[in-house]
Amino acid sequence: MTDRTIAGKAAIAGIGATEFSKASGRSELQLACEAVSAAIEDAGLQPSDVDGLTTFTLDLNPEIDVAEGVGLNDLTWFSRTHYGGGASCATITQAAAAVATGLAEVVVAYRAFNERSGNRYGTGRAEWAPSAEGVSWGWYLPYGFMTPASWVAMVTQRYLHTYGHKPEDLGHVSVLARTYAATNPKAMMYERPITLQDHHDSRWITEPLRLFDCCLESDGGQAVVVTTPERARDLPNVPVIIAGATQGSPRKQRQMTGFYNDTMSGLPEQALVANRLYAQTGLGPDDIDAANLYDAFSPLVLMQLEEYGFVGRGEAADFVAEGNCNIDGRLPVNTNGGQMGEAYLHGMNGIAEGVRLVRGTSVNQPTKDLHNVLVTAGLGVPSSGLILSKDA
Amino acid sequence: MTDRTIAGKAAIAGIGATEFSKASGRSELQLACEAVSAAIEDAGLQPSDVDGLTTFTLDLNPEIDVAEGVGLNDLTWFSRTHYGGGASCATITQAAAAVATGLAEVVVAYRAFNERSGNRYGTGRAEWAPSAEGVSWGWYLPYGFMTPASWVAMVTQRYLHTYGHKPEDLGHVSVLARTYAATNPKAMMYERPITLQDHHDSRWITEPLRLFDCCLESDGGQAVVVTTPERARDLPNVPVIIAGATQGSPRKQRQMTGFYNDTMSGLPEQALVANRLYAQTGLGPDDIDAANLYDAFSPLVLMQLEEYGFVGRGEAADFVAEGNCNIDGRLPVNTNGGQMGEAYLHGMNGIAEGVRLVRGTSVNQPTKDLHNVLVTAGLGVPSSGLILSKDA
Repeated sequence: MTDRTIAGKAAIAGIGATEFSKASGRSELQLACEAVSAAIEDAGLQPSDVDGLTTFTLDLNPEIDVAEGVGLNDLTWFSRTHYGGGASCATITQAAAAVATGLAEVVVAYRAFNERSGNRYGTGRAEWAPSAEGVSWGWYLPYGFMTPASWVAMVTQRYLHTYGHKPEDLGHVSVLARTYAATNPKAMMYERPITLQDHHDSRWITEPLRLFDCCLESDGGQAVVVTTPERARDLPNVPVIIAGATQGSPRKQRQMTGFYNDTMSGLPEQALVANRLYAQTGLGPDDIDAANLYDAFSPLVLMQLEEYGFVGRGEAADFVAEGNCNIDGRLPVNTNGGQMGEAYLHGMNGIAEGVRLVRGTSVNQPTKDLHNVLVTAGLGVPSSGLILSKDA
Repeated sequence: MTDRTIAGKAAIAGIGATEFSKASGRSELQLACEAVSAAIEDAGLQPSDVDGLTTFTLDLNPEIDVAEGVGLNDLTWFSRTHYGGGASCATITQAAAAVATGLAEVVVAYRAFNERSGNRYGTGRAEWAPSAEGVSWGWYLPYGFMTPASWVAMVTQRYLHTYGHKPEDLGHVSVLARTYAATNPKAMMYERPITLQDHHDSRWITEPLRLFDCCLESDGGQAVVVTTPERARDLPNVPVIIAGATQGSPRKQRQMTGFYNDTMSGLPEQALVANRLYAQTGLGPDDIDAANLYDAFSPLVLMQLEEYGFVGRGEAADFVAEGNCNIDGRLPVNTNGGQMGEAYLHGMNGIAEGVRLVRGTSVNQPTKDLHNVLVTAGLGVPSSGLILSKDA
């Protein structure tokens, strides 16, 4: 019988990014090429070693232009994933599948955009092509549900209500992110920590979400190099094994508008991803040493802590408030500052931080030994996740 | 060491399609759901067995809407491929990779559109989003290179010149397609064969391409079910083994505008795909018993016969004219009538015909025994290909 599993079949050998900013001053393609080049260099490889690319359907930098700009080899794998930030860990999952099946040997996952100086996702989108997708949005957009904050606010309201929390309880997540970012020179919020009072004083974006509950808007590019474990072991960096990798879109899944789910106080797509990752790896929540949880909005971090079984339902806010996600805590979370502190790179910078944690090179490296790091992708949409592990 | 190959790791268990027409009278999502449902039924499976989907970036039917419409299970794989028809065999390649790595067990590849009654690709596209892709097209569109026919005409002119052919020599390909279509009740050109004179009398679309050198414009949907060979063997249909599968985008690859390639008289992306398929399978041109070659335009069939080594450079026109691609010939080609005779389904209907040939159920089934069937994808773009084989 064939060994039909992705677990341990691929490894991350390199990461690279541009600076993260409000205005890159150059094209998205330039950002993509810089990030891909940097990741290849970090891996100790040459552009001509790369024979695969993965990215998002939302990415506006075609594979052939990135390949030409960087000087890649013939490509024998190129795939994309739909659904915005839900695609982040899927780029690595698909790269791992390509590598595991010999369809490519070195695949670079990339994402680059001028999401602040160019097309700002947070401002919403009022029109859509005449298609099934447009029809779906037609049930929401005309009623004012036009921005990610508005969609997540609805779910957050229910979550807070269900567990007797207040909007202020979200502040611990925001403070945590900004605390980590404050000591990360790459972070847009470097040296700019906030207090709970700052969170409380920040303006409503869509009640119950305040400004400091929302991720940044960023220009930048991030890339990640995936290859075989065997090849990764011959390269300069400590190999980061892809121990678990999956996508997940459960029945009834919608795009940011899961208002008819059995519960609105959870993230069914991450429950599915969690089950798959734990099954693939044989690990459970107690085995996860740190996590980078997709944090487009602060409440989503709480819901994920619960979906992954780190705490019971409704207990995540206290878990964070009690310091468990701090650098010396039980489960350091978003040590790069996350997307509320470092930059909003559609989750790809969270993967890079997961790699650094396993390597032991984060600027906020926990002192405890890290064996397994969880990384998640965009929420409320078809999503994905990874468990990155030390080489055995 | 891990067995890093895709060869023989997955099989096609079902195919399904809507009718092919000039005006479907229903939505693209409806077409997608009908095709996916039909393919699942053909496979002898239930919708709840399906846990993966693959499609094109150009497809306007989101995975979550297809899943909901058909009643699929939780999805744990969903990927898309860019570059129009170049994605057709990539949907199967990626489905095979998902199945081979256990990331999904039953993946349906689908493509559905109202390409005739809705958005007609053949009429070209005059505007593009401000992006790297838009910039690329900016070198061509303003000079009248606005339609697929115009892009392929340039390459065809060079091909004909290089090998001393005339536009009339393309007619044998067109007649061949329409001959097969004439006996295929599913074909849009059922019972409508043409002669060489008809080809010669048809109007110029873009010289040297006549109307009958161009594929049809079609409404419809096509889906293909991929699973493990083990599971396929337990299902009603004869398993069709995916013996070889790859994508291919060589250096310097462009989208339909490879006017600066070392040669304009070939298809470098299919040369790459051919090399990969032969290497994966250990097969060569002599081992291929039939082929479904992507035929958006008739000259592309000739170029592919040469790229795959069935004949030498410049010899394909004679090869077709001498009857080698007829039903009783050396290499039956596009026995469903292809995209010039059956329908233009972005190559997906060619995969279905490849499956029927291996099963032995084509309406134009060659009498000789078929072991290995080649299927190719869109040309002049990053492309893909398959070798489908009888179960050992």
